[in-house]
Amino acid sequence: MPDTHAPAPLPAALLSALQAVLGPKGLLTDPGDIAPALADWRGLYQGASPAIIRPGSTQELAAAVRLCARHEVAMVPQGGNTSMVGGATPDESGRQVVVSLARLNRIRAIDPVDMTMTVEAGLVLKAAQDAATGVDCLFPLSLGAEGTATIGGVLSTNAGGNTTVRYGNARELMLGLEMVLPDGQVIDGLRALRKDNTGYALRHLFVGAEGTLGFITAAVLRMFPRARENEVAFCAVRDEEAALALFRRFRDRDEGAVRAFEYLSGIGVDLAVKHIEGVTLPVSERADHYVLVDLASSRPEAGLRPLAEAVLEEALEAGEVLDAAIGESEGQRAALWRIREEHPEAQKREGASVKNDVSVPVSRVPEMIRRCSAALAALIPGSRPVPFGHMGDGNIHMNLEQPEGGDPAAFLARSHDIMDCVNEIVRELGGSFSAEHGIGRLKTDMMESWRGGAELEAMRRIKAALDPAGLMNPGKVLP
Amino acid sequence: MPDTHAPAPLPAALLSALQAVLGPKGLLTDPGDIAPALADWRGLYQGASPAIIRPGSTQELAAAVRLCARHEVAMVPQGGNTSMVGGATPDESGRQVVVSLARLNRIRAIDPVDMTMTVEAGLVLKAAQDAATGVDCLFPLSLGAEGTATIGGVLSTNAGGNTTVRYGNARELMLGLEMVLPDGQVIDGLRALRKDNTGYALRHLFVGAEGTLGFITAAVLRMFPRARENEVAFCAVRDEEAALALFRRFRDRDEGAVRAFEYLSGIGVDLAVKHIEGVTLPVSERADHYVLVDLASSRPEAGLRPLAEAVLEEALEAGEVLDAAIGESEGQRAALWRIREEHPEAQKREGASVKNDVSVPVSRVPEMIRRCSAALAALIPGSRPVPFGHMGDGNIHMNLEQPEGGDPAAFLARSHDIMDCVNEIVRELGGSFSAEHGIGRLKTDMMESWRGGAELEAMRRIKAALDPAGLMNPGKVLP
Repeated sequence: MPDTHAPAPLPAALLSALQAVLGPKGLLTDPGDIAPALADWRGLYQGASPAIIRPGSTQELAAAVRLCARHEVAMVPQGGNTSMVGGATPDESGRQVVVSLARLNRIRAIDPVDMTMTVEAGLVLKAAQDAATGVDCLFPLSLGAEGTATIGGVLSTNAGGNTTVRYGNARELMLGLEMVLPDGQVIDGLRALRKDNTGYALRHLFVGAEGTLGFITAAVLRMFPRARENEVAFCAVRDEEAALALFRRFRDRDEGAVRAFEYLSGIGVDLAVKHIEGVTLPVSERADHYVLVDLASSRPEAGLRPLAEAVLEEALEAGEVLDAAIGESEGQRAALWRIREEHPEAQKREGASVKNDVSVPVSRVPEMIRRCSAALAALIPGSRPVPFGHMGDGNIHMNLEQPEGGDPAAFLARSHDIMDCVNEIVRELGGSFSAEHGIGRLKTDMMESWRGGAELEAMRRIKAALDPAGLMNPGKVLP
Repeated sequence: MPDTHAPAPLPAALLSALQAVLGPKGLLTDPGDIAPALADWRGLYQGASPAIIRPGSTQELAAAVRLCARHEVAMVPQGGNTSMVGGATPDESGRQVVVSLARLNRIRAIDPVDMTMTVEAGLVLKAAQDAATGVDCLFPLSLGAEGTATIGGVLSTNAGGNTTVRYGNARELMLGLEMVLPDGQVIDGLRALRKDNTGYALRHLFVGAEGTLGFITAAVLRMFPRARENEVAFCAVRDEEAALALFRRFRDRDEGAVRAFEYLSGIGVDLAVKHIEGVTLPVSERADHYVLVDLASSRPEAGLRPLAEAVLEEALEAGEVLDAAIGESEGQRAALWRIREEHPEAQKREGASVKNDVSVPVSRVPEMIRRCSAALAALIPGSRPVPFGHMGDGNIHMNLEQPEGGDPAAFLARSHDIMDCVNEIVRELGGSFSAEHGIGRLKTDMMESWRGGAELEAMRRIKAALDPAGLMNPGKVLP
């Protein structure tokens, strides 16, 4: 990693102009105030910056961007700073300013008839979920960092999470965007329309662009009817193929009811039980493979409980399911989910681990888990593959835990070998090296190999067309 | 409309090179063979062209595009040539070649476990639907031209249709694209992945770009479980607000079951009964407003019939529904749908009409229909507003039929006044002047007023970045 330089002070003319536009709350230059924004959530990078711009409105943001553009100062958009790939922190040069969307956090409108809400980019995901609940609706995007991650961030990274199998990714939950271009021009695309075919879909270009084409400042989001029934089952299954077979049984019976379908490995559940207080194994015997299935429906009498029992009974008879526990209360359902949600924390407590956020077609998930696990165990003897995640949408976190009692640093030094090992198998299976975390800074060096040629060239041309001076989040996404 | 020139012969060197690459089936230069491709489906435009390129593979297409690019010959992609806005026909200059995707019509793969199929751009939509049915799945995109429109066309225009309320537009049914850039480079983005965040979403830029950025040559499409139950109800309703209230009743009871929710006006149904053989009014008394609701579910025992009866009973008691008929058989359900599907034909037989394909937030549909109807009747005394369409997704075809016995030409001369009248109201309600038909050539002159400023400038920069010579479908989308 490069050395981190001291921050380069902003030109005095820019500083005073920004102060005039933004006011005292809108510009932070004290090193103590800036520090929390300089390191990424995973601690992979340590950046430097002379200032954080914290606009209180889209107009203030646009004015600040115009000023930065005039002075050719690079800007790094930041929401909750929970990127898994270092996408929201400045580099080591000390020359990039952080633009925090935190104060742009209003709910501008919410309409349960249209089932839409118009919210600003800095609104925390959990607050958006709560706002929907407040009008008896559901905003379904759900992920580990939801208490910190912001709407601007989840849209800029096209976040996925647990409910993609039913509701899609952040992209599918977005109808319109307000955007600020790298030169400070504002595009008001806050249209709450299910159909609008009027030229190029700039909103879809900005979703997933990780702030390299401009700012997302507000969005029209879709809401859904809230769930009136919910069942959660935790199942020990025979093997990876049995897990997939069980998914198909549920999907075929009621595709709309499968809100999440998560795969868990025996080792992963062992670690959760070992390290996390209150986590216990809900089935009678340890197994090498588990799944967690979450069924939900807005229908008042959906009959999810008999549905779950009938499907599990069939799968037991077929030998796919070995044992299963269905949550009997809200508390029990939460306890079952906790086994899954505590996987990252349990892996962290066990020692060093390397994360692989990969996806393949759903039908290839069993083969991917099997082949990657074997290849990783062979690559680093004693290491422990801990695959877990979203089997229903093909996205498995194919993580590897260090050998027991081994040296964490020596293990982490093999990070790139580990990622390459997984990625080669994923490539053969028609998959992707970054399913839901994006590219950020961590994976830019993989872009040439995976998206090189005409595809990467087209991306570079679009970047140059919208950000000719290269001021928006430099060093991210594109190599 | 400009005069149509004689076609300008292709340079001899280009002609022979194309012949060598494409073979005898791949290049048509006989005027008789070319003629059907020169006029758009609605008969709004009459173009001219020296040739139709009909490649048999993506590689042939790419080679032909490279040759045309070298000779600076403009290319007009054409699928089923069913555009409502003249998007797929060459202009009058005689200098644009048509590139027909018709021979690129293979189904490359279909997988009922992944619920995806990989198909080429020239495949007719109906054939894609049938292929899905063949593996006991559903490809839900459904629209009037489905027997002729192609997958490349419906993706390039982000087609909508009847089932958007449940399944989204063509965009939401697409996972990956194979694309050919204006310089002939091929992007293989045929990834069958629900999660893939690896740089800019070029596929979403090409969807809806109407062939102005390059060619869509193949796509990975999503499939869904097929319906195991289906109910169709035709209802006379009190007014526009009652129609919306009924939609909300069905959505709240089972959002996943509402596959289509269509509004019909009294006049529209009158015209269908008058002009279309076999179409009769299925309820006891004529009304000024009707809706057609289509419920479908993949659940084996979804109970849609009792659901429909319960909801209609409530709405009858509330005075929203005046009378309702539920189809008792496949044949009766088809007959109810026919009242809706024959609307365009009935309007045509009655005389001249002007089409307005507009959308507003769902909650504003009643106000939009009411205000537009009044304004149109005032604009042209004796004219008959015939609003109909997709109330569930906010997209109403706010059409106007000429006065009875009046002069069609005099009426059509007011087309722009009529469109402006509707569009001004739609704009006030936060709507769009083109919901599902796109811009094509017909609406390019509205782009400046609706999407002007930063938004249109960004589109132009993207166009210039990917098609610097301006060879792809010139004169479409961008003014």
